Amino acid sequence: MRVALDAMGGDFAPLEPVKGAVLATQEMDHLNVILVGNKELIEKELEKYNYDKNRITIEHAPDVIAMDEKDNPAMAVRKKPLASMNVALDLIKEGRADASVSAGNTGALMTASQLKLRRIKGVLRPAITTVFPSKKGHLVMLDAGANAECKPEYLDQFAVMATKYSEVLLGTGDPKVGLLNIGEEPGKGNELTKEAFSLLAENKKINFVGNIESRDMMDAGIDIVVTDGFTGNILLKTAEGTASFILDFLKKEIPKKGLYKLGALLLKPVFKRLKEKMDSSEYGGALFLGLNGISIKAHGNSDSKAFKNAIQVAEKFAEVDLVGGVKEAIS
Amino acid sequence: MRVALDAMGGDFAPLEPVKGAVLATQEMDHLNVILVGNKELIEKELEKYNYDKNRITIEHAPDVIAMDEKDNPAMAVRKKPLASMNVALDLIKEGRADASVSAGNTGALMTASQLKLRRIKGVLRPAITTVFPSKKGHLVMLDAGANAECKPEYLDQFAVMATKYSEVLLGTGDPKVGLLNIGEEPGKGNELTKEAFSLLAENKKINFVGNIESRDMMDAGIDIVVTDGFTGNILLKTAEGTASFILDFLKKEIPKKGLYKLGALLLKPVFKRLKEKMDSSEYGGALFLGLNGISIKAHGNSDSKAFKNAIQVAEKFAEVDLVGGVKEAIS
Repeated sequence: MRVALDAMGGDFAPLEPVKGAVLATQEMDHLNVILVGNKELIEKELEKYNYDKNRITIEHAPDVIAMDEKDNPAMAVRKKPLASMNVALDLIKEGRADASVSAGNTGALMTASQLKLRRIKGVLRPAITTVFPSKKGHLVMLDAGANAECKPEYLDQFAVMATKYSEVLLGTGDPKVGLLNIGEEPGKGNELTKEAFSLLAENKKINFVGNIESRDMMDAGIDIVVTDGFTGNILLKTAEGTASFILDFLKKEIPKKGLYKLGALLLKPVFKRLKEKMDSSEYGGALFLGLNGISIKAHGNSDSKAFKNAIQVAEKFAEVDLVGGVKEAIS
Repeated sequence: MRVALDAMGGDFAPLEPVKGAVLATQEMDHLNVILVGNKELIEKELEKYNYDKNRITIEHAPDVIAMDEKDNPAMAVRKKPLASMNVALDLIKEGRADASVSAGNTGALMTASQLKLRRIKGVLRPAITTVFPSKKGHLVMLDAGANAECKPEYLDQFAVMATKYSEVLLGTGDPKVGLLNIGEEPGKGNELTKEAFSLLAENKKINFVGNIESRDMMDAGIDIVVTDGFTGNILLKTAEGTASFILDFLKKEIPKKGLYKLGALLLKPVFKRLKEKMDSSEYGGALFLGLNGISIKAHGNSDSKAFKNAIQVAEKFAEVDLVGGVKEAIS
């Protein structure tokens, strides 16, 4: 499989994406990566490594869409057809790549992905799909921010697409779908969740288990949590904010002397595992689910390991033909 | 000041509420507590303590609304006029108490509070107002769940009421108000937040600083976060769920042997401070803001310390005449 990687996207480009590509190809024999971006800069980075020149290639793209692009994202995508994320997606369109990864500007990448890859026929709205830690291991959450305003039918369809995603990425059989809500009983919530509940309950393509509260979702054995893009984005960022607040608190509060220092030292591996568990980049970034192609958004602050994971997940999605599976599930 | 305490509400009633009342009166000389509930049971609990019989009294209430009441909450409130939470609120209505605290069924308490205390004239919707930890110390967040469906004008008014709340409870001068949203720039979000943004920006009664993302809210020096009751409830419970997930992870992952055990032992006071910081009960529970009286909802799993805090906060609200302040701010 061939993964196009936007080598100019993210806070540490092109250093970290290029290193991520090298790591990914070292681990997977059948993987090719096309680094998309400024040829000169990428070559300079690549010089640092021993790599297989047949399996890591460069596609020159002269422009970049900045992380804090002044134009609105949609405008930027149209104004800069030769920006690295645009060119990476073009490679899929042209049949030269099987999937694409970028850590660039989220809004721009969403627009570009929709423009270049188009929605699967029958898909009402594509959704940003993420993997979230849970006691069981992980769960799939969508929409994480593509659609701030949703209709009940969108949520119903998100559940169908995510069921396929969950089966393919995580190998979950008959995944349990929960509707994010502010109470467990049917009839709870706002107009959207009340109506979506009825649709989900009648949907034979999924295994709907009812409402789920955000307090319980990591603990309830649920595989998929469905919500609108506004709420999903708030949820995701609240969890991130809370986790980083707690880790900062521990860092600040553990005195850097004497026995405390010893305590911290002894527990260092545990804190490291916690950080990994809470870190969404471990799961390879977010997917724009519902498009005619694999476009993955890696976190803006991704390091080489996060890029490596994202590339490998992109490869997997292409390998198992997730797009074909979603097409079938929707039809 | 006289605080009516629902002695039958919460998971550990009447044991913990009664103990909380004893602790609160020990700390505050000018505080009287009226314990509301089954007289016999309360007396039996009180026997355990040395307390001032002039300052802790009992008001008998033969009924209780269960935490998991089978009826819908509104129905339960109407069917059991002599339930402890109803009687506690009646004491305010009759001028025999200045504030009320209950850890009982949230939905029922919300209904009962609205029925007994009524909205302040001009208040569109009362909101559940909570205090949330932040780097600065804490911030006020509303609506935490009273109104699943909101109009932009409600959010605008929440900001005005919370400004008064923040000044009175936390002593914050000219508190900074942020609108919870999924992006910082104006124009981001769903229809509700877009319209609310315009109203807030024009509102001269508040110090509006713009949109705030949930990832940044604990870190941004904001004093008040305004949102609808659906989103606020999701946010609150996501933070709770994430914090408890992390604490459980640490508990489980720190091996109970050898040096690890030592590390955990050394860091115990730090974990304890973290738990306190994340624990909303430290801040005395949630207030139904916008009513003609002080009705505080303590967490269902409150212990005596949480009840003590809630009683003292209720006392403070009454002492500084929060209701009068909100009336003035709204008019």
